[in-house]
Amino acid sequence: MRPVAIIGIGQTIISEQWEKSIREIAGEAIRLTLKDAGRSSADGIFVGNMLSGIINSQNNLAPLVADWAGLKVPAVKVEAACGSGGAALRSGLMAVASGELESALVVGVEKMTDRHPHEVTAALATAADADYEVEMGVTFVGLNALIMRRYMYDYGWKHADFAPFAINAHANALHNPYARLHNRITLEDFEGSEMIATPINLLDASPIGDGAAALFIVPAGSLRGHTRILIAGSASATDTIAIHDRPDPLFLTAAYKSAQEVYHQAGVGPHDIDVFELHDAFTIMSALSLEACGFAERGQGPRLGLDGNITPMGSIPVMTRGGLKARGHPVGATGVYQVVELVQQLRGECGETQVPEARLGMAQNIGGSGATIVTHILKRE
Amino acid sequence: MRPVAIIGIGQTIISEQWEKSIREIAGEAIRLTLKDAGRSSADGIFVGNMLSGIINSQNNLAPLVADWAGLKVPAVKVEAACGSGGAALRSGLMAVASGELESALVVGVEKMTDRHPHEVTAALATAADADYEVEMGVTFVGLNALIMRRYMYDYGWKHADFAPFAINAHANALHNPYARLHNRITLEDFEGSEMIATPINLLDASPIGDGAAALFIVPAGSLRGHTRILIAGSASATDTIAIHDRPDPLFLTAAYKSAQEVYHQAGVGPHDIDVFELHDAFTIMSALSLEACGFAERGQGPRLGLDGNITPMGSIPVMTRGGLKARGHPVGATGVYQVVELVQQLRGECGETQVPEARLGMAQNIGGSGATIVTHILKRE
Repeated sequence: MRPVAIIGIGQTIISEQWEKSIREIAGEAIRLTLKDAGRSSADGIFVGNMLSGIINSQNNLAPLVADWAGLKVPAVKVEAACGSGGAALRSGLMAVASGELESALVVGVEKMTDRHPHEVTAALATAADADYEVEMGVTFVGLNALIMRRYMYDYGWKHADFAPFAINAHANALHNPYARLHNRITLEDFEGSEMIATPINLLDASPIGDGAAALFIVPAGSLRGHTRILIAGSASATDTIAIHDRPDPLFLTAAYKSAQEVYHQAGVGPHDIDVFELHDAFTIMSALSLEACGFAERGQGPRLGLDGNITPMGSIPVMTRGGLKARGHPVGATGVYQVVELVQQLRGECGETQVPEARLGMAQNIGGSGATIVTHILKRE
Repeated sequence: MRPVAIIGIGQTIISEQWEKSIREIAGEAIRLTLKDAGRSSADGIFVGNMLSGIINSQNNLAPLVADWAGLKVPAVKVEAACGSGGAALRSGLMAVASGELESALVVGVEKMTDRHPHEVTAALATAADADYEVEMGVTFVGLNALIMRRYMYDYGWKHADFAPFAINAHANALHNPYARLHNRITLEDFEGSEMIATPINLLDASPIGDGAAALFIVPAGSLRGHTRILIAGSASATDTIAIHDRPDPLFLTAAYKSAQEVYHQAGVGPHDIDVFELHDAFTIMSALSLEACGFAERGQGPRLGLDGNITPMGSIPVMTRGGLKARGHPVGATGVYQVVELVQQLRGECGETQVPEARLGMAQNIGGSGATIVTHILKRE
């Protein structure tokens, strides 16, 4: 395996893009990424997407996107529910690291808002176990609510203790022009928000949206002498798809495993990470992710928020561009957005939410309630 | 890239497996493959599947399958419509060839028969261009019918000239216990069959089904001194997803490109290929595939069948285990079935349909009407 670097990034705003088709949204991210990389084509395209078959009646999405972008190169779609973006990056990475390709475009895209919210809720539930979870009538937010309720009971947290995750995300998104939501929220807003599935209310949950993000990767060896953004670690791990099959439903085993592996690959530990784009689909997932990756003790994730450590000036900044909560969560695209945002941090392009002297960033992308977890570490050198 | 070998294969019967869930079908193929390989686990799992989201309400399929099989290893799903199986093999191959993994299970699975045929027809249409083909009301078989009609007009073939493709497939499937159909057909049957979309009738078309097939791959270097089944060539190519966007709708450009690349990788040409498992979703696709891969001149594919050259004793045996036509076409699994069958040929396990001294085999898996085409060459040495 040869080292791989990211030399181009691009993203669209996350919004209700009713006037654009899924191919147009993906094409826009590709156009911006090729421009940023200074390239006109790539040897292969890896598309991360979860729902094009169900929501857009479109499978075979990868050649569709390649065709639309005017790039008739090998293209494949990778699906791992909300972890599809991270999984697509990992597939592209292996193709370039193996020597099979000299460059690859990794594109995460999702177009979700054309359908009625009830249909989207049903589509999102396909991330869970159809036969043993969804069949019982639970939605995807319902599953996360079960986890959060148990977590609050076991560790004695109250709902307001999760507020800093959402408040920080919204505060950071104010400075991200691509973000879905641009409104500052307070503790009062958080506590007064509409209940969705007790104890998860509207401000615990991330909004879906239409959007695409892309990365251009090449062998790092071709860039000697320049500042480089290297993929210093890449790992994927799986857990049971159904929460009830896990010995401990409050611990993200796949997050732990994949984090341990990327730390090992990069030769670092949690204390070396300058910025962490985690998968805050719900506030509870922020806590669980921070704990599984070694930033907090078991059951103590919310403490990091309450103590002010998760802001861009804190000890472990998270959701620096708004996270899933406020940047938005176009599910199959999210994992690519996270890595694009890390590159922005490592390049020092984040303005008001720039993490000072960010050199080492981590992104963690979760598919389902923890069944697929893909973790990457990027390093500027 | 290091060479990779296939050391285990497994498959289920293709039928209406109403009593089994998609995870059980995949699990059975995995169990058989692990047994055949003499292994108890693999470093990663690559699942090829097209329709689990739409038909089985199940995304995140890869960890589901890994979990059910008792293998908590990294797992990802690859989707390229009916080319998903070949694409999954290519992804697994890159992971092992790159040195990232020391072994991988590649599993193709599809469970399609629980739904009403109208729903399946709609689901299969997601392989085509949703906005510019399907929106006009054309089905997937309708698109192939347009190609076949034009081909017959341009090259002067009559419908009966395509019969040998179907007759050979059914004859071979009689000896394949895993095949969907076990009935011999005649020219009269072929010509008298029910019309589906003129000129494609029922016996031009392959049947869907429920089934799974799997492969176990490892670095070939670990097997020195033994007979080995090597993956001597692997390539993927894309074309426009919509047929009307192709300068010549009667030429499978992506088949040509991917075949040329695997010939180059393996250092061989079409005349060296002993057996060719092609993607005969419809008889017309057999002709186009044979032409694009260099076995026949443009417009002359049907001649190979009429001259008796495609049987197991012919100059270019195809569909030796029944092909999509009679072995069956569980869409996302088909590409893996093809490669499993090639391994059976190279091992000499095919009995009545064994190709004498088969040493070099090719498999070609097509996604959509030609948008994604994945071609592999296997070599026994």
